[in-house]
Amino acid sequence: MKKIINNVDDVVAEMVDGMVRSYPQIVKKLPDTEAIVRNDADRDKSIVGLVSGGGSGHEPTHAGYVGQGMLSAAVAGQVFTSPTPDQIYAAIKDANHGKGVFLIIKNYSGDVMNFDMAKDIADMDDIPVKSIVVDDDIAVENSTYTQGRRGVAGTIFVHKILGAAADQGADLDQIDSLAHQIVPNIKTIGVALSGATVPAVGKPGFTLADDEIEYGVGIHGEPGYRKEKLQSSKDMAHELLEKLGSEFHFEAGQHYAVLVNGMGATPLMEQYIFMNDVLNELDKDGVSVDYTKVGNFMTSLDMAGVSLTLMKLDDAHWLQNLQYPVKTIAWGA
Amino acid sequence: MKKIINNVDDVVAEMVDGMVRSYPQIVKKLPDTEAIVRNDADRDKSIVGLVSGGGSGHEPTHAGYVGQGMLSAAVAGQVFTSPTPDQIYAAIKDANHGKGVFLIIKNYSGDVMNFDMAKDIADMDDIPVKSIVVDDDIAVENSTYTQGRRGVAGTIFVHKILGAAADQGADLDQIDSLAHQIVPNIKTIGVALSGATVPAVGKPGFTLADDEIEYGVGIHGEPGYRKEKLQSSKDMAHELLEKLGSEFHFEAGQHYAVLVNGMGATPLMEQYIFMNDVLNELDKDGVSVDYTKVGNFMTSLDMAGVSLTLMKLDDAHWLQNLQYPVKTIAWGA
Repeated sequence: MKKIINNVDDVVAEMVDGMVRSYPQIVKKLPDTEAIVRNDADRDKSIVGLVSGGGSGHEPTHAGYVGQGMLSAAVAGQVFTSPTPDQIYAAIKDANHGKGVFLIIKNYSGDVMNFDMAKDIADMDDIPVKSIVVDDDIAVENSTYTQGRRGVAGTIFVHKILGAAADQGADLDQIDSLAHQIVPNIKTIGVALSGATVPAVGKPGFTLADDEIEYGVGIHGEPGYRKEKLQSSKDMAHELLEKLGSEFHFEAGQHYAVLVNGMGATPLMEQYIFMNDVLNELDKDGVSVDYTKVGNFMTSLDMAGVSLTLMKLDDAHWLQNLQYPVKTIAWGA
Repeated sequence: MKKIINNVDDVVAEMVDGMVRSYPQIVKKLPDTEAIVRNDADRDKSIVGLVSGGGSGHEPTHAGYVGQGMLSAAVAGQVFTSPTPDQIYAAIKDANHGKGVFLIIKNYSGDVMNFDMAKDIADMDDIPVKSIVVDDDIAVENSTYTQGRRGVAGTIFVHKILGAAADQGADLDQIDSLAHQIVPNIKTIGVALSGATVPAVGKPGFTLADDEIEYGVGIHGEPGYRKEKLQSSKDMAHELLEKLGSEFHFEAGQHYAVLVNGMGATPLMEQYIFMNDVLNELDKDGVSVDYTKVGNFMTSLDMAGVSLTLMKLDDAHWLQNLQYPVKTIAWGA
């Protein structure tokens, strides 16, 4: 294992320290936790608080999306490990400014359980909490750590759209209703070129031959649906869009947002080439692409590969919310 | 070679297409070139135009820094190959809005020659052009493609500071003077954990053993100054800061901006851990760190490793310019 780290047991703590020290105008850490919360001048504005989190190793997810117009807090677990209920609760408490807190949970059994437990603690403290479980990965039903479908990169669209709504004053019921409208319209599927190495394990979670790729791998290296010989970017785009098309049933007049997400070790050059092929293919389907985003947004440590997220924009407000200005470390343009 | 590409000869053209199609609100391509220029509503504002560029493979450099408050244009050469004078000239012509154009050139012989030739063409067309050559890499004197020191990640601070000055109305002489003040205060040095594979070559430009790193490698895989067994992040931070310290002579009261730049395949987790160690070390030196940035800003395809840039902030305006709001694909927070 060749990584720029110190002790494998300290990677998350040191990473969180590095992050909050690099961007103190945006985030800070809650004492004695790995919960990263807003640190801007408007942090205590009386809006619905948005809290997400999960295992580390997916950076910039989720702490990179904490800030004005997006998340109130992100709780970082150990690598590929759910954060504990007490830390999630600390984040909920900090994010509550009188209007309650909404939790955005990726669909992994550990996350769902621990966020639910934190919600129970909040209930006892009379903090109103609602939540959504994001299950955007269409690759497989059920998986190593998941009942149903996994939650992956499409989650950042949930952060963004709910964040804009909260910042504009939506109340907890409105956020909850919006969340349950958008999540069924967000679908993701990925392809891996290599596996990720968890520091404490020291070797890749799965291996592929030099000329082999795997479709549908999860962000913790969960098995996908098919291995193949290396294909062209065009063929990969075609394969993933065929799967997405069987969910969305592409037709002219539909509007989409498209996210190409690098898994960690894949150069931006390849991600742009892949996006070009995706857009060419979607042109043929006659759908309208109104919003696009390319980069490393939800990674899997040093995994090579990309995921492709489509969101069907059935409501013009959703697009406005995607375009709403934010101040975060990682959302970008 | 395992990459998400189609034909190796088309990687730059397809990448540029993917980029401009993904962010049409920020950039467009000049017809029949790989020059990426501003496409926002204010693109024709009468300010000094800023043009940069160089070989591709360093994404998001430079096109990711085109936009309001930063570059007017970026010219993309083939992978690790200088852009041609005619394409650079096309960018200069587009960037000139009556106040002249300033060129930001990384110190590689091919870039220097081709940007100079483009300047000569512009002279014949009576477009006032001045320029600076950025040579921030302190690792070695002279290199495979360079007389003197190489130009690397510190170049993005030059883009940012000059971009803010231009946007605020500085004239060509003022931009030129500012450029020559800041560049000597920007120093970079890196460490590689693995080599990069140019698509047309198909294998890494250099290789390191499984437990080996190399200090001072260039962004095209130019040799560094020492190979070592894998070290801790703390030790790497110490080594690079020792080299930088021998340039800056750290002492209390000095103010710095710090950039930790991922080389392409290095996860953000490792970059934050490394930044944490850098900041700990700089604390001991008693200097003040006023600005920090972590991420993949000037990469070398799929190279693993990081570079560390320090800029001595001798003038409070430089910090203000770093913080000045921009609308680009890649500058971020």
